[in-house]
Amino acid sequence: MNSAVLALDIGGTKLAAGLVDPDGRARSFLVAPTPVGVSAVLEALFALGRKAVADAGADLADVAAVGIGCGGPLDAERGVLLAPPHLPGWRDVPVTRLAARAFGAPAALDNDGTAAAEAEFRFGAGAGSRHLVYLTLSTGVGGGVVLDGRVYRGTTGNGAELGHVVVDRRGRVCRGCGGRGCLEAYVSGTSIAERAAEELDPASSLATVDSFTAADVAEHAAAGDAFAAGVWRETTSALGSGLTSIVNVLEPEVVVLGGGVTRAGEALVAPAREVVRTTAMTPGGRAVRVERAALGDRVGVVGAAAVGMRLLEETR
Amino acid sequence: MNSAVLALDIGGTKLAAGLVDPDGRARSFLVAPTPVGVSAVLEALFALGRKAVADAGADLADVAAVGIGCGGPLDAERGVLLAPPHLPGWRDVPVTRLAARAFGAPAALDNDGTAAAEAEFRFGAGAGSRHLVYLTLSTGVGGGVVLDGRVYRGTTGNGAELGHVVVDRRGRVCRGCGGRGCLEAYVSGTSIAERAAEELDPASSLATVDSFTAADVAEHAAAGDAFAAGVWRETTSALGSGLTSIVNVLEPEVVVLGGGVTRAGEALVAPAREVVRTTAMTPGGRAVRVERAALGDRVGVVGAAAVGMRLLEETR
Repeated sequence: MNSAVLALDIGGTKLAAGLVDPDGRARSFLVAPTPVGVSAVLEALFALGRKAVADAGADLADVAAVGIGCGGPLDAERGVLLAPPHLPGWRDVPVTRLAARAFGAPAALDNDGTAAAEAEFRFGAGAGSRHLVYLTLSTGVGGGVVLDGRVYRGTTGNGAELGHVVVDRRGRVCRGCGGRGCLEAYVSGTSIAERAAEELDPASSLATVDSFTAADVAEHAAAGDAFAAGVWRETTSALGSGLTSIVNVLEPEVVVLGGGVTRAGEALVAPAREVVRTTAMTPGGRAVRVERAALGDRVGVVGAAAVGMRLLEETR
Repeated sequence: MNSAVLALDIGGTKLAAGLVDPDGRARSFLVAPTPVGVSAVLEALFALGRKAVADAGADLADVAAVGIGCGGPLDAERGVLLAPPHLPGWRDVPVTRLAARAFGAPAALDNDGTAAAEAEFRFGAGAGSRHLVYLTLSTGVGGGVVLDGRVYRGTTGNGAELGHVVVDRRGRVCRGCGGRGCLEAYVSGTSIAERAAEELDPASSLATVDSFTAADVAEHAAAGDAFAAGVWRETTSALGSGLTSIVNVLEPEVVVLGGGVTRAGEALVAPAREVVRTTAMTPGGRAVRVERAALGDRVGVVGAAAVGMRLLEETR
């Protein structure tokens, strides 16, 4: 009985929680807006967690571990959120210690990109693979890498900054890192909308909208607007180029794409996949599967659960 | 006594051989031009190997294993050279079986980029590190990756195509893969000379030379020629950009640069290192050591030896 993991996902705009079984199935799944301030967020998060346990028809004694996913920088080993830019005012918050106390179970924390990579590797589009690359295309672009079945972290635990693979070294300034021409500067939701706004053609159907998002750009492109289609082509082409670089370095079996921007579906994935298929260096690289995350909007919660499951496996 | 490895390095223009001790020291080191034709090359290679054993004051009974390094594509597991472009006419040559027969010792084959990475990891600039990236800047650009102390190969064994990380997706056509804007299209010896020739300024001191190589470009740049200095700046800037992408993905401890182009020394390495130090995404990435290969011209032979040592360790 005592094998379910309480998963907590801390986002800049929303919190999510769920009680997740060892097979990756979420017995409950709840979302709430992120309030402002450290104690308000933690209070809301833990309340959401308690509700997720109750909604699953369980009680706290059923929680074997708590898994927490959050944007970095963070110290996964010590379970401390250092200073995540999407949570203003947070600094060195020992979130696993607080969660362990709140739920009476061991808790673990990891980067949400890493957590999502592990979730897709265990339960999603990468199930059964050995080497997986996960990219999340959202407000920013993050990711995670699983090599030989294990999360790869790099020397200080901050590798897999996949949004900062350069696709055009003289290109747009990247908000995330201040460099030029990063993948993130072309394919994050923010960048897609910005690029469209910067070059907006008054004849475009987008010009009739007050303000627009990446989803609007995708929609207008799909509806046949030539300008939006051009912005979208630039997006998929930059994505394909970045993925090709990553594939040429790592030659994974599968590249999984998640995050809000991937709601555009095959309109995003198919052209990017085609770039990899035609320009990767080796036959193995050209054969890499490029797929949308199978866990959809639940990847954050299932990812956080995977972090808790790993803790249980390591301490068993 | 029986612990030395006979190392054989098969290059497109030269063959090299040496008898190497377990500590990476080459007791002999010989180089010869590569003849034309499969049997002529094998004959010359094995003759060079026998001479390397004799020059070290040893005999065949002292050879514990034979390690062979060669450009790919190859099948390391079966020990077969598939169709290396630098060896015209070679097709499915079972080189380890032939070498094992010639020297009466077990033999193993690996990609020369991988072999060099392992050599620098065991005995060179990466000794004592955990994660290492090795790039060879030569006629083309290749490399190898060691993660968590082990060579990382990717799904079909052909990962670490580091020359085909894209730095400018609308840039120069890459001879190696047909794509656009690969690192190799800017920093291989061939590309450096080509870029200089394509844009040659008649006022440049290079214009007085009949034909020139990458080394000439480096030399004229160092001597103060403005045009050559511009071509060189483009080289180091593209290199820095490609290294930054690789570092953002893998966050290794050390990036080692080998191959003929690195004879330019700090004029190449220092500005590329500075790009990584100022534009990599994470503090860990910015702190990555970027260094020239410590094994110099012997990296091919010591790399081939490392391949043989790995075989001995795996079968022990």
